[in-house]
Amino acid sequence: MTVLDQQLLKSETKKFTFGYAPDHFILESGEKIGPVTLAYETYGKLDKKRTNAILVAHALSGDAHVARNQKENNNPGWWDNLIGPGKGIDTNKYFVICSNIIGGCMGSTGPSSINPQTGYEYGIDFPMISIGDMVNAQKLLIDNLGIEKLLTVIGGSMGGMQVLQWMIAYPERIRSSIPIATTMKHTPQQIAFNEAGRQAIIADPNWKKGQYYSSRVPAKGLAVARMIGHITYMSEISMSEKFGRRFKRRKEPYKFGAEFEVEGYLRYCGDNFVKRFDANSYLYLTKAIDYFNILNGKRLARIFKGLKAKVLVIAFKSDWLYPAHQSQEIVKACKLSGVDTTYCEIKSTYGHDAFLLEIEEEEHLIKHFLNTVTNGSNNGVEKPETDLHEN
Amino acid sequence: MTVLDQQLLKSETKKFTFGYAPDHFILESGEKIGPVTLAYETYGKLDKKRTNAILVAHALSGDAHVARNQKENNNPGWWDNLIGPGKGIDTNKYFVICSNIIGGCMGSTGPSSINPQTGYEYGIDFPMISIGDMVNAQKLLIDNLGIEKLLTVIGGSMGGMQVLQWMIAYPERIRSSIPIATTMKHTPQQIAFNEAGRQAIIADPNWKKGQYYSSRVPAKGLAVARMIGHITYMSEISMSEKFGRRFKRRKEPYKFGAEFEVEGYLRYCGDNFVKRFDANSYLYLTKAIDYFNILNGKRLARIFKGLKAKVLVIAFKSDWLYPAHQSQEIVKACKLSGVDTTYCEIKSTYGHDAFLLEIEEEEHLIKHFLNTVTNGSNNGVEKPETDLHEN
Repeated sequence: MTVLDQQLLKSETKKFTFGYAPDHFILESGEKIGPVTLAYETYGKLDKKRTNAILVAHALSGDAHVARNQKENNNPGWWDNLIGPGKGIDTNKYFVICSNIIGGCMGSTGPSSINPQTGYEYGIDFPMISIGDMVNAQKLLIDNLGIEKLLTVIGGSMGGMQVLQWMIAYPERIRSSIPIATTMKHTPQQIAFNEAGRQAIIADPNWKKGQYYSSRVPAKGLAVARMIGHITYMSEISMSEKFGRRFKRRKEPYKFGAEFEVEGYLRYCGDNFVKRFDANSYLYLTKAIDYFNILNGKRLARIFKGLKAKVLVIAFKSDWLYPAHQSQEIVKACKLSGVDTTYCEIKSTYGHDAFLLEIEEEEHLIKHFLNTVTNGSNNGVEKPETDLHEN
Repeated sequence: MTVLDQQLLKSETKKFTFGYAPDHFILESGEKIGPVTLAYETYGKLDKKRTNAILVAHALSGDAHVARNQKENNNPGWWDNLIGPGKGIDTNKYFVICSNIIGGCMGSTGPSSINPQTGYEYGIDFPMISIGDMVNAQKLLIDNLGIEKLLTVIGGSMGGMQVLQWMIAYPERIRSSIPIATTMKHTPQQIAFNEAGRQAIIADPNWKKGQYYSSRVPAKGLAVARMIGHITYMSEISMSEKFGRRFKRRKEPYKFGAEFEVEGYLRYCGDNFVKRFDANSYLYLTKAIDYFNILNGKRLARIFKGLKAKVLVIAFKSDWLYPAHQSQEIVKACKLSGVDTTYCEIKSTYGHDAFLLEIEEEEHLIKHFLNTVTNGSNNGVEKPETDLHEN
């Protein structure tokens, strides 16, 4: 682990390490790696029967700190409004686990970790990883926690891809699943946005083919990559509402300083991201997303065949990065495979970011859905106000 | 002019220079510049009454070579299928003018031109320019050609903005206008895409605050900017149809080489653009686009008040960079201002690029429209197959 990792690793974050030599962790590509550490956090208590565990999968830039940990770290988590005592995912009832992914830079083994073979950071000697590898690693963590069956696995965006992967890789290990604002395969347009970001990083002379850990990081390239990402996370409407064309000529050392508010915002987002994220992780994780394709030529009716879990698919109307039609395709595949599926398209102007922002709507849906999964029925559970079948 | 300019300047391109000291050309910002050269081409013959002249305004990366010039340069122009003898804009009937814009790098005065004050390239000492400045310069060219009234002014994208500017700045100098795939003001999302591209250029250490003409150009930054642009020019569907998820592991010197076809395509587009375009021009022209706002707080009914020209507004269904609703807003402003306006939304999957690719549909519409403008009626003119009022 680098110094950066150690700083970022919050005090209450636990660690799970596996894949010691000679039994290294085998990746989908066939390559081996080990040892592998996953940083993870838990909230609430696992019940005696170990049936109340919920796994939360995070998105591209997320980490294990999904909620407040009352005792150790009271900083808000990235899904703080949704997860906690008395909240939509009630940690008085459920045992919530969130682990940082393999390939990441928030405490788990990734390109910024020390390669035990060399004593230096992996850089781009780190093997290519896939969403399948992330889920296989999470499954070892779940095994280690002694949980045979998760009550649910939930996540948005890249987190949603991990949810879908759980549904096809370990269908017997989940009672339900909640993929949010996601897709079964990355389209060329989605790949293209990621590729433009990667090229911005690679074009930065500080990148040095990934070996920058003892010198300057490719901050400018990573900032541009994040800017591109941010545009795709918002919507035309949310940008217009947030910024309009508000304008301020600033005194800059040279021309082309930020004038429009949206320019200043993007620069702020880019610069801020550089402080907390590793550029090589950005390359690896976006590649994992681009490779993701659980369809892979299969018929829709075959994808989730035999899955007994209940599924709640959530999409957002103004999300143009993972548009609702991609969630509808998931629903179609589930229904054709005979899976008990509920679909909800939430009205929102926030674009893709809605999955982190439209908490009130999500909370209602998820609370209700978890009750039906736990109770096996709808009895005594308040109906959510949102129309579950809106389309 | 730089060596690059001289190479790019095709043999048949004419030049018009104005704004000699002390009467420099005054920009909308109040700054002065001179002398200013516009590179331009003409096709066909101006009739005796000088009533058959059509001005074509080009988009961000365009140039004056809009069509083949039979005698001098038979290379296809950027709108070759639309303009030529017997084509939609028939150069046997019409006198077509296309001029490279001020601020550009295709023969007109721009940041890569020599600043007569210093003897070196302007770089970012070049003054900021606006769409209004581009049109004011074009108007001087039209004056110089002895044309009192243009039959029409036509253009797509940034060319369409110039068309709208002609409609408000010189309404008495045009008999008609054809703004295509454009907008009356740039939205924050549109600004954001341009800003990400600019930041990619500025992040390139070869940019050196714009003074790179005697050394290496900021090729990598400009290539990334072009990649971002290209994504916005296509549609999700056109990218899927063109590339799918076709994939080829290539032997690259290091990881993160192009694997998906769309990655290879974007890199090709980026690298190719660098050979023909100046990075500083990219900064100035995208800024001019971002500043563009003919609404500027005015009521819609005031924008085109008093305009006597006929207007044909064209949009494309899959264009998400300048979506059809922005063209509908132009139509609304025209109608509320009492302007004789026709609107057509062409079905296309090409995205914003459709204005350069859906020639057959455009040809029909434009031919018919020009006939009605010339004849003042519809008599004897074949009705286009496309529904003019589709919405």
